[in-house]
Amino acid sequence: MNSADALEAGRVVEVPVRAGEGRLDYRVLVGSGLLGRLPALIRKHAPAHRYALVADSNVTVLYGRRALQEMVEAGLACELLTFPAGEESKSRTVWSELTDAMLGAGVGRDGAVLALGGGVTGDLAGFVAATYLRGVPVVQLPTSLVAMMDSAVGGKTGVDVPAGKNLVGAFHPPRLVVVDPRTVATLPRTERAQGLVEAIKHGAIMDVHYLSRLERDLNALLEGDPSSIGTAVLRSVEIKAQVVSDDEREAGPREMLNFGHTLGHALEAQAGYRVPHGTAVAIGMILEARLGEVLGVTALGTSERLERLMARLELSLAPPGPEGTQEVLAYLRSDKKTRRGRARFVLLKALGRVARGERWSHEVKETAVAGVLERWSAGT
Amino acid sequence: MNSADALEAGRVVEVPVRAGEGRLDYRVLVGSGLLGRLPALIRKHAPAHRYALVADSNVTVLYGRRALQEMVEAGLACELLTFPAGEESKSRTVWSELTDAMLGAGVGRDGAVLALGGGVTGDLAGFVAATYLRGVPVVQLPTSLVAMMDSAVGGKTGVDVPAGKNLVGAFHPPRLVVVDPRTVATLPRTERAQGLVEAIKHGAIMDVHYLSRLERDLNALLEGDPSSIGTAVLRSVEIKAQVVSDDEREAGPREMLNFGHTLGHALEAQAGYRVPHGTAVAIGMILEARLGEVLGVTALGTSERLERLMARLELSLAPPGPEGTQEVLAYLRSDKKTRRGRARFVLLKALGRVARGERWSHEVKETAVAGVLERWSAGT
Repeated sequence: MNSADALEAGRVVEVPVRAGEGRLDYRVLVGSGLLGRLPALIRKHAPAHRYALVADSNVTVLYGRRALQEMVEAGLACELLTFPAGEESKSRTVWSELTDAMLGAGVGRDGAVLALGGGVTGDLAGFVAATYLRGVPVVQLPTSLVAMMDSAVGGKTGVDVPAGKNLVGAFHPPRLVVVDPRTVATLPRTERAQGLVEAIKHGAIMDVHYLSRLERDLNALLEGDPSSIGTAVLRSVEIKAQVVSDDEREAGPREMLNFGHTLGHALEAQAGYRVPHGTAVAIGMILEARLGEVLGVTALGTSERLERLMARLELSLAPPGPEGTQEVLAYLRSDKKTRRGRARFVLLKALGRVARGERWSHEVKETAVAGVLERWSAGT
Repeated sequence: MNSADALEAGRVVEVPVRAGEGRLDYRVLVGSGLLGRLPALIRKHAPAHRYALVADSNVTVLYGRRALQEMVEAGLACELLTFPAGEESKSRTVWSELTDAMLGAGVGRDGAVLALGGGVTGDLAGFVAATYLRGVPVVQLPTSLVAMMDSAVGGKTGVDVPAGKNLVGAFHPPRLVVVDPRTVATLPRTERAQGLVEAIKHGAIMDVHYLSRLERDLNALLEGDPSSIGTAVLRSVEIKAQVVSDDEREAGPREMLNFGHTLGHALEAQAGYRVPHGTAVAIGMILEARLGEVLGVTALGTSERLERLMARLELSLAPPGPEGTQEVLAYLRSDKKTRRGRARFVLLKALGRVARGERWSHEVKETAVAGVLERWSAGT
């Protein structure tokens, strides 16, 4: 029985993430209802003397208090630390507060952090764990589709600072990731759409069959159908685990995951971060596919198929106009990965395959990027 | 020619620090006048697009401005970031300020941090590097004897928080360590004495011949004689490099370095951190040697020889009295490494050799520790 069928049959599927030399680094467990079996899983895979369960104010109400109760009833020492929901909490201030609360609660080197929630919680609590007494284990318990599809696997942690997002942080691979696709049903449709952008990215860079399945199941996925969600999350986790295995720090294949993100980040910054990340990445993918087509690297028709699929997610982002386009280009020039004024882009060969040069990304002249942005602004 | 003779002859001695599986992790270069050759060393061993040279207000005047000038004249892009001298700067606030200054200066992922100064600078700038854009390289340039003997090698970085010292941080091994023993001559005698405590510890746990040499040369070392200082720093670096190789995270032999530190930390905490770290560790070593003697683990006479040597350093710490003793015991119970109420101690078998049980440290009953503290308080 393959892993998707196992999941469908109600089993727990285990996806290994490997570090250097093929050693198992950690496991991602995917299974419907797993959150209800938390104490046993934690006890087995992340034994610790005391746990700090970190959740935002919304997730505390939805799942946090109950998880705390179950942990305590199972005889595990656990404290629930709640912070205000919202991206503003992904800050050095809240990081300090959570750290001090853990110190106050007497969590020692033999303690561990449980990060229960969406991307903000995973990044923030992961960074607390990375820097607490020079590092304690973290268990990622993603409850949003974005976190399941993307941030919970791979070990990136961090906070935002005035100069930009995720500029302070650490690589701190989790001890364990527990994905319970059931929690996705409680999310608003628009948040599921955000998560599906990452799923589409995984299909676009690695697996055209997965992309076709997403096209077929998109309506069910948007509605939160548990079976479709579970299958998609599992495939995305498998792809991400494969890509980050042996490449924890982004020197090699992990770079592929940046497809759509070079332009996506620039569009986000130009919009003053008032556009959701997924929306910006969705447009980024379409434009980067067009860029590849213009450069003769990407098969013609690629961007059109992505565009049709993205349209069904009902994400909207207006082109920035001539002045905004110049700002986007300025952001690209200041990008951390930009060298000699040429930003780097992950380009597709075709859907399901990245065009590999010397590296997994390509330097592209600004004029080519400007052309694509202008065409988009002109609506053609 | 052995390494000490090579150093004496004016050569640069290279001490390798190895990570898992014997791979070279980084080099410690020891040599008189090395700080004057910084740009060439940096270019060779830690090439980067842009450097942030971090120094406190004192070291900026002594060495920082000149190092900056030499870097820039050598064609290396370099910014000098100065923070106020003093232990209070080892804080999350100054860490944030340095980070923001680096972001403002446009240091990217291909940048590196140069930590020029004593232990505070190494720990603080090391933590900035560990968390800057999820980690950039740091080069440790220790200018104090404590930093050369101890903190610059091994990869521990961090800051203090209200709840205690070094409670927030990360393991972030340097890319390179450059030790120029000449800078030790500019230090006050009392600061050299602080550094020599760590040297004595290295002798006590690993090399009785080294300890004898320290006894023989102690006056010259206290006076800052460059040749004696150079030889001692080299041997301490060799010992520390050997101990931390293959044990980056303190699961094995690295624990030996905690000799004198279990009681040392408790004494420091009880004194509200108004006693220098080296002084507390010196007393800690004497008392932990006595503890080993009482337990029948450590050869009789060990503590006496340590006590005679320490007396020559002219460090003074009054015993805490009956009430203070209870406070010290309370700190031990709250120690991060304490289990089941029993603190762990590194115990010597004899000078130059640690008594190894299952681990490199031993659980000791509180009554035995209380006895040693009471005897010390009673002046017997």
